[in-house]
Amino acid sequence: MKRVDVAIASEDADRSYPIFVDEEPGAADRFAAELCTRIPEGRIGIVTDDTVSKLHLGRFADALRARNRRVTAVVVPDGEGSKSLMRAEELCESFAREGLDRKALIVALGGGVVGDLAGFVASIFLRGVAYVQVPTTLLAQVDSSVGGKTGVNLPAGKNLVGTFWQPRLVYADVTALQTLSDRDRAAGLAEVIKHALIADAGLLALLEQNAAAAQKGDPELIAELVARSCTLKAFVVGTDERETTGARALLNFGHTVGHALESASHAERNPLRHGEAVGLGMLAAARIAAAETGRPSLEPRIRALLDAVGLPTDLDDRLSPGTLSRVAVDKKRGGEHISFVVVDEPGRARLVPLTPARIHEILLGGKAR
Amino acid sequence: MKRVDVAIASEDADRSYPIFVDEEPGAADRFAAELCTRIPEGRIGIVTDDTVSKLHLGRFADALRARNRRVTAVVVPDGEGSKSLMRAEELCESFAREGLDRKALIVALGGGVVGDLAGFVASIFLRGVAYVQVPTTLLAQVDSSVGGKTGVNLPAGKNLVGTFWQPRLVYADVTALQTLSDRDRAAGLAEVIKHALIADAGLLALLEQNAAAAQKGDPELIAELVARSCTLKAFVVGTDERETTGARALLNFGHTVGHALESASHAERNPLRHGEAVGLGMLAAARIAAAETGRPSLEPRIRALLDAVGLPTDLDDRLSPGTLSRVAVDKKRGGEHISFVVVDEPGRARLVPLTPARIHEILLGGKAR
Repeated sequence: MKRVDVAIASEDADRSYPIFVDEEPGAADRFAAELCTRIPEGRIGIVTDDTVSKLHLGRFADALRARNRRVTAVVVPDGEGSKSLMRAEELCESFAREGLDRKALIVALGGGVVGDLAGFVASIFLRGVAYVQVPTTLLAQVDSSVGGKTGVNLPAGKNLVGTFWQPRLVYADVTALQTLSDRDRAAGLAEVIKHALIADAGLLALLEQNAAAAQKGDPELIAELVARSCTLKAFVVGTDERETTGARALLNFGHTVGHALESASHAERNPLRHGEAVGLGMLAAARIAAAETGRPSLEPRIRALLDAVGLPTDLDDRLSPGTLSRVAVDKKRGGEHISFVVVDEPGRARLVPLTPARIHEILLGGKAR
Repeated sequence: MKRVDVAIASEDADRSYPIFVDEEPGAADRFAAELCTRIPEGRIGIVTDDTVSKLHLGRFADALRARNRRVTAVVVPDGEGSKSLMRAEELCESFAREGLDRKALIVALGGGVVGDLAGFVASIFLRGVAYVQVPTTLLAQVDSSVGGKTGVNLPAGKNLVGTFWQPRLVYADVTALQTLSDRDRAAGLAEVIKHALIADAGLLALLEQNAAAAQKGDPELIAELVARSCTLKAFVVGTDERETTGARALLNFGHTVGHALESASHAERNPLRHGEAVGLGMLAAARIAAAETGRPSLEPRIRALLDAVGLPTDLDDRLSPGTLSRVAVDKKRGGEHISFVVVDEPGRARLVPLTPARIHEILLGGKAR
């Protein structure tokens, strides 16, 4: 069992919270014990999805009920479609009808979609109740469950509605990852590689030396990767909770081109996973950084690591003017430039203002425009 | 022009904000000047309703455009029905399609419904943008526009979804109240009487000495009443922003029975206004306080003042077991007791735990149960 603490800067001390990374069998009981120590009373509303409810809901709900907590579970359909205001309203209505009051606690049991939706519901139900994250995918354990960003989608775009609302506790049950597919595990590793590249050269070396074990999901190694990723995320979130200083923006490494590739792939029979797209986006970002800074490119080293953990590297086949037209100025930020994340060397990243036109020029250089 | 400052306790200084009370013609221009000094850039999205858009939207939008601000207005239907998550989604979608980014500013131009809805939208659009309140009803000027409580309704109940999100500025244009009906003005005065009873004996005397002028809407007097009400509200909100210490709960004086009467009256041809119901609720609260404390009842004094400003006083005709069955434990708070607000003497209020059964007993004493 490992523990990482998130300390939110310049705010009340009670908004800080711990992340537990637990790789031993029986994590549900230890989770319930930890939760009941920290939040000893109040009704509990679990939000989960179809798949996770079959795999993990029983043991978590039973562990809480064994400690005399009243538990209500609401199951939403799998997938991004559940990140909607309509679904948020259904959850609030269910919890209100079940009699949950301001002392209630919401438990997000699932991957990124469940975490974003349940966190948002916790932030608006009765003007805000407590919640905890129990991430069950590697992607959620190393990234989305930490940091308090909640959100749902609008027809106009993803995550255009949401809040900053910090969980009271994050409990990463590494044994839950045994039910992940190889592809989903690899997609989660992409975000670990991202964290290593922007802030932790030692983590990059660890990944390179143990790529095969990471790909197979060795529990001890995975627990180490989750804890180190969370340490970085906790530090960044602690210094820049609301994305105002630029520190948190470094976490967008690989995401500018990655989002464009991910979105373009939705027309394909087999669309890219988010982590796969971020992996390809990091290759593109390395190429752009080399062109802009004149430094040696990190692209070959990143490519070798992506390949070693089973992630796609077919960036050039996917680059086209149509795809890159999706690299647009961030809807949330406005302005003419993108704040592009450049990694100068492993562990050292910074923001550079770039126009979409310059990105097109570097990546499509030889190709017809 | 009067100014009151809201200082939010134990938080960042930049979450404090001013309330301006302006009783002179030309307030829209002074509002625009004040806004542009404080928030010099960013797109502006005005939220208003059908009635207010016809009366006041033009001059406020023009004043902002005259200072080179880009303004988008969205008009929602009049009435409580607009406080829904569906309507909130429509507003967010409109603002996203219009290209509003994180620097955008939402202006709530209207009464309580518009303020609650627009404030909620501001708190969730792009994970939170700035907003200002321009209340156009007396009720909103003396009460709902100050304090940062936002909310929409669920089928399961009113205000069960919402946030605490403080405006950057509140601008009460007292001249806008000239378009109010006598009945709506009187309804607003009920909340002023409430503020006087719980915290300001001097304000109560001022009201009693000038009841006729208040009823007629004398601008200078109304500006004084708005400023003094806001001073009290600002103090309470500053010490108990999130309704955790009990200070803010004192503002619920008259609301326990008032809400029950208001809700029961919805079946009538001519339902009670919120302020009218609060007035009747204060009579009931005075009767309950006298029974519980043995002190002399404030009921005759409150009744005389309600009568003098044109508010209904027919409490006894409206008390019935059916109506009082709506006096239930607060859905948001849970527990067995109501935190009932008792005024011991004008300007001095406190919370007393009471069961709904005890309230029934006092108010229905002689009547069949």
